[in-house]
Amino acid sequence: MLQISEIIKAIENKLRTLELPKEPAGLYDPVTYMFSIGGKRIRPALSLMASNLFKDDISDCMEPALAMEVFHNFTLMHDDIMDHAAMRRGMPSVHEKWNLNTAILSGDVMLVKSYELLSSIKNQNLRLALNVFNDTAARVCEGQQLDVEFEQQSIITPDDYISMITKKTAVLLGCSLYCGAIAAGANVEDANLLFDTGMQAGISFQIKDDVLDAYGDEKLVGKTIGGDILQHKKTYLFVRTYQLADDEDKSDLLRLYNNDKITADEKVKQVMQLFEKYHAKSEAEAEMKKYYAIAHDVFRKVNVTEERKQILMAYLDAVYTRNF
Amino acid sequence: MLQISEIIKAIENKLRTLELPKEPAGLYDPVTYMFSIGGKRIRPALSLMASNLFKDDISDCMEPALAMEVFHNFTLMHDDIMDHAAMRRGMPSVHEKWNLNTAILSGDVMLVKSYELLSSIKNQNLRLALNVFNDTAARVCEGQQLDVEFEQQSIITPDDYISMITKKTAVLLGCSLYCGAIAAGANVEDANLLFDTGMQAGISFQIKDDVLDAYGDEKLVGKTIGGDILQHKKTYLFVRTYQLADDEDKSDLLRLYNNDKITADEKVKQVMQLFEKYHAKSEAEAEMKKYYAIAHDVFRKVNVTEERKQILMAYLDAVYTRNF
Repeated sequence: MLQISEIIKAIENKLRTLELPKEPAGLYDPVTYMFSIGGKRIRPALSLMASNLFKDDISDCMEPALAMEVFHNFTLMHDDIMDHAAMRRGMPSVHEKWNLNTAILSGDVMLVKSYELLSSIKNQNLRLALNVFNDTAARVCEGQQLDVEFEQQSIITPDDYISMITKKTAVLLGCSLYCGAIAAGANVEDANLLFDTGMQAGISFQIKDDVLDAYGDEKLVGKTIGGDILQHKKTYLFVRTYQLADDEDKSDLLRLYNNDKITADEKVKQVMQLFEKYHAKSEAEAEMKKYYAIAHDVFRKVNVTEERKQILMAYLDAVYTRNF
Repeated sequence: MLQISEIIKAIENKLRTLELPKEPAGLYDPVTYMFSIGGKRIRPALSLMASNLFKDDISDCMEPALAMEVFHNFTLMHDDIMDHAAMRRGMPSVHEKWNLNTAILSGDVMLVKSYELLSSIKNQNLRLALNVFNDTAARVCEGQQLDVEFEQQSIITPDDYISMITKKTAVLLGCSLYCGAIAAGANVEDANLLFDTGMQAGISFQIKDDVLDAYGDEKLVGKTIGGDILQHKKTYLFVRTYQLADDEDKSDLLRLYNNDKITADEKVKQVMQLFEKYHAKSEAEAEMKKYYAIAHDVFRKVNVTEERKQILMAYLDAVYTRNF
């Protein structure tokens, strides 16, 4: 079995040598650019670790694993347009560096390439993976739509929020584990348990992201603290504070979120004061813990020896406890 | 075997009852809208006629056929953004009726849905269809990229043009015939011949489109005559005129195309005078004829009785000779 560092290295190598046509450069250069600016590679890592649960030689599973990364980067390229995000991982986003049309079309071709990579799965396993991938991809679009709509809506409950991030973020982690397992010939029962493991863990990871955006170390996280607040994002911190707040604080929170007349610093400071008043951080951490515990419980049921499970478990723990 | 009108009717019925989630409405309403505003349904019709060459009951082939129409509409939704096209089939385009984000995201989910529909193909035929569809989808993106780039470039040869429309338009017609045949259990040799038939016919159909845009009857074509000229599109008429023109007319043509100070009517009129001077219309018609004759020759080789071939042949002829 491969160690975490070996898996990440294998992914980076494969991404660097990913076969893309040279022409038209205007279409494919932005794709290469997206991979060159980094990323944690969580999704392909999960895929390969899931493959490695069932099979020692996972060279056949590399392309389906990359499909998850390519798909994820397609969503980032299009989401950055919708969010007016000028930067991605400290570098100009594609629509900034090139233009809107390029970001649309290069994103489109990435979605196609993710299917092409997935299609390398052998025999009847392809159909199993494809069905889950199709379903996941549609749910990711639905989740992004909800995320955009939530920015304009005042009252979002924690349940609405969990439903949105399940679609936008969590199902792709489930799908990554599922497709990795299926590509390695796992049975559907185990693959389904892994889908659920990834999805539940994915919910906890997204809540973690929300917490890091407000409470992380700017140098480690690599983006401005409070960015979600400035972008009117309905994070777990926001929706839970809103739910717990008294009527006066509820209207203060809404007024603050939509007030573009105060400085960014002042806005972040005042919103955070309300978060603190209602213990939003510890509420979020309790929620993270709850979903991560479910992920653990489900993973335990996968019919593989404890020893084989250690690496994937350690990796999930590392993502769960990260501070960047 | 089904008649052309029965096939079109079956497609319209199936499109009307296409199962899409109800929520989020902001994501799926634009998809339903795109289908409601019409279209000739050429791609699914080709698919079903190709299926019908090999099999009388083509009910299993309906979903793969619709995949071609859904994919085509995804490209229209995104192309309309890139072309700043406010109208589509006489109705507001999606980015006009809703907004940019909606047109991006609803287009994305349509691309996913096209894969979902294609995935209904039974057994190992799925892989055959998927490989050709993946390849086609990437080439369509490449073709759109070239089309956008050509608008900014002065010198495009007829060869460049043919290469661009082959990718942007013709391969999807080839793919529609191929997938229809494969879904009906045809052998790969016949399916490949059908791919080539569709691709060659597709080239001739696109040149026809260019001719209709400049010389068609506005009432029949349903859009402003000369629209391609006003949009600086490098049509066959343009590239062939440019190739044949003397140096003075070459620079006149370029100057006219990029001159935004004269009225639209005046621009169309003067460009058309140059088209006429170099017999661009009859040159285009000769080129159309050439590619359509190749399509005919290839289709002849498909190993099916002449009788079974009549409906698809009649349909191709109808598209070739259309005046709308």
